[in-house]
Amino acid sequence: MSTPFDYQALLDETLREEKKYGERGQVASYIPELRKADPNMAGIALMTTRGIFTAGDTAVNFTLQSISKVLTLLLALEHRGVEAVFAKVGSEPTGDSFNSIVKLETSEQKPLNPMINAGAIAVCSLLPGQSVEERFGLIADLLEKILGRPVQIDESVYRSEKETGHRNRALAHFLKDIHALEGDVEEVLDLYFRQCSILVNCADLARIGMFLAAKGINEAGKPIVSANAVRLVSTFMVTCGMYNGSGEFAIKVGIPAKSGVAGGILGVVPGRYGVATYGPALDRKGNSVVGISMLRRLSQVLDLSIF
Amino acid sequence: MSTPFDYQALLDETLREEKKYGERGQVASYIPELRKADPNMAGIALMTTRGIFTAGDTAVNFTLQSISKVLTLLLALEHRGVEAVFAKVGSEPTGDSFNSIVKLETSEQKPLNPMINAGAIAVCSLLPGQSVEERFGLIADLLEKILGRPVQIDESVYRSEKETGHRNRALAHFLKDIHALEGDVEEVLDLYFRQCSILVNCADLARIGMFLAAKGINEAGKPIVSANAVRLVSTFMVTCGMYNGSGEFAIKVGIPAKSGVAGGILGVVPGRYGVATYGPALDRKGNSVVGISMLRRLSQVLDLSIF
Amino acid sequence: MSTPFDYQALLDETLREEKKYGERGQVASYIPELRKADPNMAGIALMTTRGIFTAGDTAVNFTLQSISKVLTLLLALEHRGVEAVFAKVGSEPTGDSFNSIVKLETSEQKPLNPMINAGAIAVCSLLPGQSVEERFGLIADLLEKILGRPVQIDESVYRSEKETGHRNRALAHFLKDIHALEGDVEEVLDLYFRQCSILVNCADLARIGMFLAAKGINEAGKPIVSANAVRLVSTFMVTCGMYNGSGEFAIKVGIPAKSGVAGGILGVVPGRYGVATYGPALDRKGNSVVGISMLRRLSQVLDLSIF
Amino acid sequence: MSTPFDYQALLDETLREEKKYGERGQVASYIPELRKADPNMAGIALMTTRGIFTAGDTAVNFTLQSISKVLTLLLALEHRGVEAVFAKVGSEPTGDSFNSIVKLETSEQKPLNPMINAGAIAVCSLLPGQSVEERFGLIADLLEKILGRPVQIDESVYRSEKETGHRNRALAHFLKDIHALEGDVEEVLDLYFRQCSILVNCADLARIGMFLAAKGINEAGKPIVSANAVRLVSTFMVTCGMYNGSGEFAIKVGIPAKSGVAGGILGVVPGRYGVATYGPALDRKGNSVVGISMLRRLSQVLDLSIF
Repeated sequence: MSTPFDYQALLDETLREEKKYGERGQVASYIPELRKADPNMAGIALMTTRGIFTAGDTAVNFTLQSISKVLTLLLALEHRGVEAVFAKVGSEPTGDSFNSIVKLETSEQKPLNPMINAGAIAVCSLLPGQSVEERFGLIADLLEKILGRPVQIDESVYRSEKETGHRNRALAHFLKDIHALEGDVEEVLDLYFRQCSILVNCADLARIGMFLAAKGINEAGKPIVSANAVRLVSTFMVTCGMYNGSGEFAIKVGIPAKSGVAGGILGVVPGRYGVATYGPALDRKGNSVVGISMLRRLSQVLDLSIF
Repeated sequence: MSTPFDYQALLDETLREEKKYGERGQVASYIPELRKADPNMAGIALMTTRGIFTAGDTAVNFTLQSISKVLTLLLALEHRGVEAVFAKVGSEPTGDSFNSIVKLETSEQKPLNPMINAGAIAVCSLLPGQSVEERFGLIADLLEKILGRPVQIDESVYRSEKETGHRNRALAHFLKDIHALEGDVEEVLDLYFRQCSILVNCADLARIGMFLAAKGINEAGKPIVSANAVRLVSTFMVTCGMYNGSGEFAIKVGIPAKSGVAGGILGVVPGRYGVATYGPALDRKGNSVVGISMLRRLSQVLDLSIF
Repeated sequence: MSTPFDYQALLDETLREEKKYGERGQVASYIPELRKADPNMAGIALMTTRGIFTAGDTAVNFTLQSISKVLTLLLALEHRGVEAVFAKVGSEPTGDSFNSIVKLETSEQKPLNPMINAGAIAVCSLLPGQSVEERFGLIADLLEKILGRPVQIDESVYRSEKETGHRNRALAHFLKDIHALEGDVEEVLDLYFRQCSILVNCADLARIGMFLAAKGINEAGKPIVSANAVRLVSTFMVTCGMYNGSGEFAIKVGIPAKSGVAGGILGVVPGRYGVATYGPALDRKGNSVVGISMLRRLSQVLDLSIF
Repeated sequence: MSTPFDYQALLDETLREEKKYGERGQVASYIPELRKADPNMAGIALMTTRGIFTAGDTAVNFTLQSISKVLTLLLALEHRGVEAVFAKVGSEPTGDSFNSIVKLETSEQKPLNPMINAGAIAVCSLLPGQSVEERFGLIADLLEKILGRPVQIDESVYRSEKETGHRNRALAHFLKDIHALEGDVEEVLDLYFRQCSILVNCADLARIGMFLAAKGINEAGKPIVSANAVRLVSTFMVTCGMYNGSGEFAIKVGIPAKSGVAGGILGVVPGRYGVATYGPALDRKGNSVVGISMLRRLSQVLDLSIF
């Protein structure tokens, strides 16, 4: 009988070897609250069919930020259907930074994809509900079904983004102008800022990754979202999940993944693992430096690339 | 003794010959209220030292729209000084349309000039005052000193712009993000929408033109603003006053001018005339078609080009 | 014992059902020679471990065009190494059309990826050799090892591109200016125009697809290029292989693929199939309309998506 | 009887006070030959009806570079007519740098104006003649009529530009692709590189300025080009003559002017003066730092602004 693979040793080694690269990055500064993060934090979590393995700072809470785009896209696809969603948002990578507004003016009157801020805000506006609370309830409920526990938001990050999110406001009003945003701009932004402020830890992200790796079935074995919605979302995670660093990530790591500027990366290894990293020091494109380093090593050792 | 030049005959002929070109344009549609204008309207007014001459629809009221940018720039230069103004706004033509946002992202962190919407909104934010009312009072007061009568705004246009001005809101929030807008975004926009909604007629515009032609001295002979501020504003009217049609206008007409999407054009012939046209049918760049036609003819006959 | 899957019936049905969509496209017009293609042509070929299956116009010769980018990238990676290649070309999708020059000026001094024209020309310049003939020999030799037969170019297409390829010349000289092109511009272009003019048919493309699906091992069982080079190239085929339609293709079809403006599409189903289509009527982004339709159906029936 | 104005004292003082600002600039580096210029050189020349006044390095020869665009535009307007010229080139300032290619792709299929490199190359292609020599003869002949002496080119600068002008080659091939360049690309570029390499000194430039100030009449009193062509060219000098620093120059100096990257600036004070400066240290936009400083002072003292 073969010895089961020692995931714990692999994670420990990965953390030990790659942690130092965090020095090459910088903590996000454009939201005042995010500047407070400790740039030396690093953690990695791997959810397998044998359970979860972790190394480093995997119990530290941080905010989802752009990783939340995965959840709203899943919900929009489920509640509004594929056609309604793609009437408001495109499906092409942009080559521009996550908060760029240029292509909104020079392209075909809708944001290029749902993983850049403009596209995610458009998708947010598609969630059904009479109020921001009701819509946010859909997101919280989805996460609760995945994680098996209630979620909450970081109030100070939420308020910080709401007060200083001028660029996102610019994007949202531009979207309104080109008819790519439904409803009231401030309400949609409120929902967007809330979802960005949801608190998770690295282990939570690995569970979300496993949920997607299992095509939408949660740990209790219950189907929560359709396999087709998961497939679409995973595709976007590959082509645009790491902002304008997605192409390089595809080559170096090769798994569906989504990063957030608070330092988290959510990874999916279809049919096998959920994987996640935490490290708030970011590269110029907004992705966790140590996160990418750790995932790259893991991908090589475990042969994770889908390509 | 020589017979004085027959300005009236010239204006009558100009209107008669050029009026038909209005058919080539279209009334502005992006503000719902503006769509109601009659595209066949046309008027021209020439203010000379011998008094004012008019032909056509020169008593019809319309809103200043972008022509108001001339007034706020004058006020900002007078109240804040040249350096403070150019710390927030550049001085280069853009080659892009009046409401473009692209250059805000790709250029040096401030709007390229005070005649495009982004730049004018930034300039608006520089006017001193404790409230929107107080700041608007400065603009109204300046106009009153020029025209010799109180001014009012078109309430329905103002409300229409305030409700539907999504693109301008996008610009203003973007400016806030790059620190090119002082104060509260909605207050600045409120001021901007108000100044755009000031009601004038074609004859009023000719009087404003004469005020600038006289280097800031009003009809009563009183200096209202400094000659230097007038010189700066006139320069911008040449390089950027007709949006991304300024270069062609300089070649064809050759005078400092500023157009508005309600159909007015304000023209300055330094030391000689104020000239103005009205015609709500616009070309693709947002300039009055019949207005440009009439000014071109007038420029040839009276040799108005400064070049 | 189970009946083997009836691939032939599937291809026949696919062709019959999807062929009509060719009407929605237009034959490429920017190279005069390509305009002569018959827009109603359509063919599909599937290379399996049981042999090759075809339906429609799969014996018609056409030129590789952009599909050749796959071959030169493989060769550049093998001969020059990963680092040398990515010193001259990036790895990000662009969101712009295949012949766009804008990003060369606004981005980081190298073409964004090796699948757009600019990037492919830069990659071309990396092939070793003393002359264009010698370098082209590398490409011809690689194809010969894959297809088991010598290849030739379409002389009239080659000359047509060489004479009228002004846009590609502009790209190449711009690359020279930013030090992203090695050697003589005209020689590099000559090589590029030759590789674009290589004649293949749809069945050939399916064999190339199978070669990549087998990680670089040809039909004779011989390793021709390294598995790592194949993995990198396959990744680029997913993120940028269908120009600025790659994101949508990933969602709808979900396999590594590369299109050419002569109407071919080369598809790879890792470990399973090589698949290819022909149909010279293109959509606005330069991809074969009927090709995408047929591949979409095939992907659904055979569950080909890697996502 | 009043004492005539002491121009010599003014020029001497101007040079003395402003010369130091040359330190803020850098000699052009993109053409290898230009790097050899002495960054501390500075000269100013003023051509008046009383003769020419000079101070500093006004006898040093340098190449016309972009200043030559003024001459070819004059010739194209004279030989081909206004309509033919503006069919190939626009009339709007761009806000982009002199060698930018972006707008060629994003705008309306022709270069935005004849003062940027792309536009000037397009204008070059419009000169009549059977050969490059014949066309260049037109330019040389025009200059000879203005300066009263034969001109020659700097062979090493010419060869240097011809060998390393990759960006200009990219522009020219792009122009060919969009049908904005007539004839053979390399021949047009040859002509463009030759005109850029014509040798002048600062005093020559002041004479050219006076020729334009006199609406096309040379020192011998002979009309060489039409007043209308001069008016058009002067207008472009105001709106685009100083690259993307034209707006600021209009505000600070306010005269038609054209700069070249070898360090010259040609200025026109309509009806009064020709003025020119030399100083090879350039600002980021490609304009002579000390040249702008000196012209600004002169403009203030002599009240030269046309605005």
